[in-house]
Amino acid sequence: MSSSVSPLAPKTVPDMPVIAGVRLATAEAGIRYKNRTDVLLAVMDKGTAVAGVFTRSKCPSAPVEWCRAKLRGGKARALVVNSGNANAFTGKTGRSSTALTAKIAAKAVGCSEGEIFLASTGVIGEPLDATKFDGVLGRLAETAEPGDYLAAAKAIMTTDTFPKVATATVKLGKAKVTINGMAKGAGMIAPDMATMLSFIFTDAPIAPAALQALLKSGVEDTFNAVTIDGDTSTSDTLLAFATGAAAEHGAPKISRASDPRLKAFVKAFNQVLANLSEQVARDGEGARKLVEITVEGAKTKASARKIAMSIANSPLVKTAIAGEDANWGRVVMAVGKAGEPADRDKLSISFNGIRVAKSGARDPSYDEAQVSEAMKAPEIAIKVSLGLGKGRDRVLTCDLTKEYVAINGDYRS
Amino acid sequence: MSSSVSPLAPKTVPDMPVIAGVRLATAEAGIRYKNRTDVLLAVMDKGTAVAGVFTRSKCPSAPVEWCRAKLRGGKARALVVNSGNANAFTGKTGRSSTALTAKIAAKAVGCSEGEIFLASTGVIGEPLDATKFDGVLGRLAETAEPGDYLAAAKAIMTTDTFPKVATATVKLGKAKVTINGMAKGAGMIAPDMATMLSFIFTDAPIAPAALQALLKSGVEDTFNAVTIDGDTSTSDTLLAFATGAAAEHGAPKISRASDPRLKAFVKAFNQVLANLSEQVARDGEGARKLVEITVEGAKTKASARKIAMSIANSPLVKTAIAGEDANWGRVVMAVGKAGEPADRDKLSISFNGIRVAKSGARDPSYDEAQVSEAMKAPEIAIKVSLGLGKGRDRVLTCDLTKEYVAINGDYRS
Repeated sequence: MSSSVSPLAPKTVPDMPVIAGVRLATAEAGIRYKNRTDVLLAVMDKGTAVAGVFTRSKCPSAPVEWCRAKLRGGKARALVVNSGNANAFTGKTGRSSTALTAKIAAKAVGCSEGEIFLASTGVIGEPLDATKFDGVLGRLAETAEPGDYLAAAKAIMTTDTFPKVATATVKLGKAKVTINGMAKGAGMIAPDMATMLSFIFTDAPIAPAALQALLKSGVEDTFNAVTIDGDTSTSDTLLAFATGAAAEHGAPKISRASDPRLKAFVKAFNQVLANLSEQVARDGEGARKLVEITVEGAKTKASARKIAMSIANSPLVKTAIAGEDANWGRVVMAVGKAGEPADRDKLSISFNGIRVAKSGARDPSYDEAQVSEAMKAPEIAIKVSLGLGKGRDRVLTCDLTKEYVAINGDYRS
Repeated sequence: MSSSVSPLAPKTVPDMPVIAGVRLATAEAGIRYKNRTDVLLAVMDKGTAVAGVFTRSKCPSAPVEWCRAKLRGGKARALVVNSGNANAFTGKTGRSSTALTAKIAAKAVGCSEGEIFLASTGVIGEPLDATKFDGVLGRLAETAEPGDYLAAAKAIMTTDTFPKVATATVKLGKAKVTINGMAKGAGMIAPDMATMLSFIFTDAPIAPAALQALLKSGVEDTFNAVTIDGDTSTSDTLLAFATGAAAEHGAPKISRASDPRLKAFVKAFNQVLANLSEQVARDGEGARKLVEITVEGAKTKASARKIAMSIANSPLVKTAIAGEDANWGRVVMAVGKAGEPADRDKLSISFNGIRVAKSGARDPSYDEAQVSEAMKAPEIAIKVSLGLGKGRDRVLTCDLTKEYVAINGDYRS
């Protein structure tokens, strides 16, 4: 949808290794876009464990409801993702559309419908014609190959300006296991489009309950700590698949998330989540600056999170950063409105390491020219010290530019 | 600050009658602006009752702390308001500045410092040099006249594009009483500026506790139901003054807010609050559309308010309205993220009376051309029916335009 790649895009794209037990294929199903892929099929070997976390929206999309229900089985054989249509707010049509898609996919892959996972991103409120998958999924299942994760990440883009992939390789027991991930997401909802989607694949032999626990814990400081505009999609979906193929090379079978042998794996898993979620912030609609907000000295971590999110979602803070203005008055405002314990006269605030406010007033040593220069950087770190306790948290966001308003307001004209 | 008047400004300005017991004067104190008034003194007769409500920010400005403390006395003799400097986040200097201002004002008016009320709006974090009031307030106290409310409203403007006044005259017992109000506020925080300020004056003889109860109840569906950008100022201040002068014409002295003789007065009082708060929304930074959001069929009124505010503060909803797009998908998103009870499949949504979604899907009778035409209007009414209960609420906001980003992000360049 967007013509130019975000200036915050990563400079290099990692080589994505193969994951044993996972085969991928993409196609042009013509759901909405022309001349680009818009459907992804990932086929997993028998015995693949699945875990998932979803939007907390009270009005979730039909595919989210489908996945939530099927997750109870803990097993996955295929993932079908389409872009161009979110199948959200489509009433009963939405439910029959997910059922039909799963039926077609199950036949193509040769498994039960309960082992099919679905995600859709695109227009809201438009019925998704699942008959378009007929034929397409059968062909994809036949041609799926162990590998092009970048092509897969491209097929699920909407207003994204670059495909988002990440990988890590780590020891589990004495065996090498691999974690591959992809994500899409530009606004929580982009122009008439919905969704943050992310999919993680690993060959580690991890049981569904353990994988679910890892995922739930891992998203807390990664995907859940990113905000573009505070607008939560109806379709946010993060699924993790563990094929277990590494067991053949001696990787131990893991049934509990607390298993001490998982230590290195958990670290690598969380790094993949952090990498992907940071890429989502880097591709925020209209973003020109990546903003990291750290709040320390709060009563608790949860309190620090609330204050950091209040700053990250403040349009006045975000527009100030777009204007390269170290406007700490607005940061104070956002701290104050968060409703969490804060003492104005203990507050200190810094931008990119330069302290501009301390003890509830302007820092006397504050050099305007120095700060103005620092604010020109593409990455801005705002640190707020509350001086009340040991609670600390960090969230990522981007600036609010005229391009955001143009992307989300101009497309009718 | 702004060059052109908001297209949403009221077409006419009411003639503001005199309030017995209130005298006004304005001056150019040169606090920040050049060639415009920036200080207002309102002198009230002895026996004037005062009530106030303030920002819920945990980091309030020094004048807010001053007023909160003095409100306990219940009596007011003078109000001093300056624009150009908010005296917010100014540490100990802020406190000594309010104390000095009150001292100068008390001397000028001939009362105790506890009867002086203060409000400041403008730059945050800049010490306010209260010695600038020396001489100025003495001269203003001498020249104050029963008068010019429009001039008073102009003196307290920052990024406002028009002065905001409202008036109502109503019977209390058999006597005629008058309620005059003024307000300022363009963003919750404007470019480096803070504050929504509003001041109400009446000659009705209402005791402080009763006035406080009226004010607290009155703001709930007026000022508290307006949002420009979800960013709560450190300085929001709404003060009401009742001189009691109408007692001379036979108005009964009121000591309890529940007094049945107050019925007509309460209605008029709330109308003045509603009128002023609507004007604040009409002067939202960069606003081109006034947006009224009604949520009905919620479990409770409080639940309806949360959902309405979630819609009103959604950047995606606000940019869609700026783009004249009846994007009900984004309204669904905002309902869903509010966290309040909602059933996607019972939702109905209309824009300016045209239903675009019902029973959780697009309304089959939805005519795109008709809705597009309706979205060109300067006033947009969004109605959401949840179909769950009898809770209903209404809030006002404005659209989010590139001008908002420009006003709040460009001024450094």
